[in-house]
Amino acid sequence: MARSGRLSSLGDQRENGRQQILDVIRTTESIARIDIAKATGMSPATVTSITAELLSAGLIEEVAPDASAESRRGRPRVALRICGKARLIAGIKVSHHLISAVLTDFVGEELASHEMPLSQGRMPVQDLCTQILRTLEIACQKGNLSINDLSGVGVGIAGMVDAERNFVYWSSSLDERNVSLGDALAQVLPCPVFLDNDANLVAKAEHLFGEGRTCENFIVITIEHGVGMGIVIDGKIYRGSRGCGAELGHTKVHLEGALCQCGQRGCLEAYVGDYALLREANLSSGGARHATLASLFEAAQNGDAVARSILDRARRMFAMGLANVVNIFDPSKIILAGARLSFDHLYSDKVIEEMRHWVVQVDAPLPEVIVHDWGDLMWAKGAAAYGIEEVTTQTVKELANAAA
Amino acid sequence: MARSGRLSSLGDQRENGRQQILDVIRTTESIARIDIAKATGMSPATVTSITAELLSAGLIEEVAPDASAESRRGRPRVALRICGKARLIAGIKVSHHLISAVLTDFVGEELASHEMPLSQGRMPVQDLCTQILRTLEIACQKGNLSINDLSGVGVGIAGMVDAERNFVYWSSSLDERNVSLGDALAQVLPCPVFLDNDANLVAKAEHLFGEGRTCENFIVITIEHGVGMGIVIDGKIYRGSRGCGAELGHTKVHLEGALCQCGQRGCLEAYVGDYALLREANLSSGGARHATLASLFEAAQNGDAVARSILDRARRMFAMGLANVVNIFDPSKIILAGARLSFDHLYSDKVIEEMRHWVVQVDAPLPEVIVHDWGDLMWAKGAAAYGIEEVTTQTVKELANAAA
Repeated sequence: MARSGRLSSLGDQRENGRQQILDVIRTTESIARIDIAKATGMSPATVTSITAELLSAGLIEEVAPDASAESRRGRPRVALRICGKARLIAGIKVSHHLISAVLTDFVGEELASHEMPLSQGRMPVQDLCTQILRTLEIACQKGNLSINDLSGVGVGIAGMVDAERNFVYWSSSLDERNVSLGDALAQVLPCPVFLDNDANLVAKAEHLFGEGRTCENFIVITIEHGVGMGIVIDGKIYRGSRGCGAELGHTKVHLEGALCQCGQRGCLEAYVGDYALLREANLSSGGARHATLASLFEAAQNGDAVARSILDRARRMFAMGLANVVNIFDPSKIILAGARLSFDHLYSDKVIEEMRHWVVQVDAPLPEVIVHDWGDLMWAKGAAAYGIEEVTTQTVKELANAAA
Repeated sequence: MARSGRLSSLGDQRENGRQQILDVIRTTESIARIDIAKATGMSPATVTSITAELLSAGLIEEVAPDASAESRRGRPRVALRICGKARLIAGIKVSHHLISAVLTDFVGEELASHEMPLSQGRMPVQDLCTQILRTLEIACQKGNLSINDLSGVGVGIAGMVDAERNFVYWSSSLDERNVSLGDALAQVLPCPVFLDNDANLVAKAEHLFGEGRTCENFIVITIEHGVGMGIVIDGKIYRGSRGCGAELGHTKVHLEGALCQCGQRGCLEAYVGDYALLREANLSSGGARHATLASLFEAAQNGDAVARSILDRARRMFAMGLANVVNIFDPSKIILAGARLSFDHLYSDKVIEEMRHWVVQVDAPLPEVIVHDWGDLMWAKGAAAYGIEEVTTQTVKELANAAA
């Protein structure tokens, strides 16, 4: 029954202590030293020593004690909080025809933002880097901030991303495969870059300030040009061993089925994506042709049988995909996130109703399904949250190296 | 950005400390106190205090220092190990026509075992309890052990099981739904019972003493009467919020497809399960009828086109199901476990080859797929391992209550 355990050194312990204390302070917004000791199980002496270090590094600051009920009972306690001015962070979301940027302080407060349309969906890596830089520069100008003060940039992009290596295996925004986008961005930006799949960052945003705040196990499904998924297990994003997990859009729902933009057949995306609907709408001989989704939706609403049949199948396929997610993860919550406008047929009560029929039937309440449509700027805020997290980890490592 | 953190009390800390120390001792097989302190980050004084408590409770024992290289360098160190005699544990696997029981000591060493065929697959809960009791009694007789000395029984059963509540929503071994099987067993057995889905316990067995020993993220897929899945994430079994996750066999691979034994349509199981193959074999008008899988396989090997077509489709559907698992989890390893004999067509290289084609294509190595066929007694050993784990947790809680 032997299994090799990972043994951690005392130096690691101190590093973990710094990270743990920063996490507790961030989560509680402000907290006294003695309560940090209680929350972490560390000795008061250790907490005093580590917080002194974090104070002198400027990462946290003291809050003057207020006259609240709790503090009146004894000696007023000085609380600690994250120092907003400690770092300037940016979050970027690369969509198919838009770049969204948000600037936040180290607490996560938004300072400025900018959105820039892209003339093309798919482009060379250098062009994408230039566009991201320009979007950031304009956002900085708007907020009267200097881009050189940035400590970190979180970037979310659709596709197969290995977050650990800042590496893009494939993205619908890039015209080649296997791009070290993190490295390329680092050459034009004055600070570290942290790259992740965009659906993962929506999941992070939902966890930090959205519908997943009170939930440690939930699934986010994003519908845009393609279908994305973010998985939160025990409060952490699940990425898979190569960073290529959560590809719900490319799970197969039909053996040798419809052709997908990925080149394979039978992918869920090839039935519910916008391109899949337009493909059918344009080929249908029984009804009128439709150049846009809006026209297809209108025809369906007006009773056009072919248009209805196209949307019906998409809806049923999507319900089946959702049911498969429930059958595999049995999550406590599913959040459908994305730009609502184009995908109303997939957000309907009918989808959720059909999903219920295809879920393994047990006499227990089904997961809650929530529709949460928010704009690209919220996705960018998720990217900024990722940036804050990674900059915190990096800073803790620097403190550890300085102490060693 | 506020999120409520779970704050743990000092009492919890001590309880966690006991559990952590027992885990480290179990994982390393034997370890000196000072190395426990290093591994856990606890102070040597805390380790000494907790291990004294565990020694006096008889859960661990001291090992005389040996003359190995490491201990020669200084004062010989006394190591600690789990005391095998501390507890007697049983593991039970309920299959469709067989009950397997294994008895182990607290270290996990096998002491005795017994397998008993069942005359029927599906039965009333009282009958199943009686059969389990009888199997255990015979195993105890074989090992010259008393059933009254059992401290815990781990039980694995196919179906939808809520492990936390020892509750069976549905199982192919029971003739009714929503059975408190744990409670029913507790009335005939002299000790606590810990129930789980059988595939989860195979995953636990693989993690503790099988192909998953060196791996913290892997998937086990079991093929028997149905298709089961066990998910290990960060070294822990993933169960879902109601205990109904990992139902790969009931993920839908075809909209309104073949009828499944669960009553729904298009489930993976309805294409690859033994009953699905026999259903087609018996209805086929083009070829001979086959009453058994063996006859169907033989016909396929002899070139019968219909028999081949039946097995071919099952194989391709299974490959598609495997690809979906990779697309969602991107695990580092997939272990195909179960009784090999009947399912050779699903274990073939061709399946793995086809799976590779249906996985999202990135320029990175695919997960390793391992075929690991082992008998029901190994499944029962996984159940025993679960029993050991739960009895340990319970004992730690009792110590905490005694100390409070």
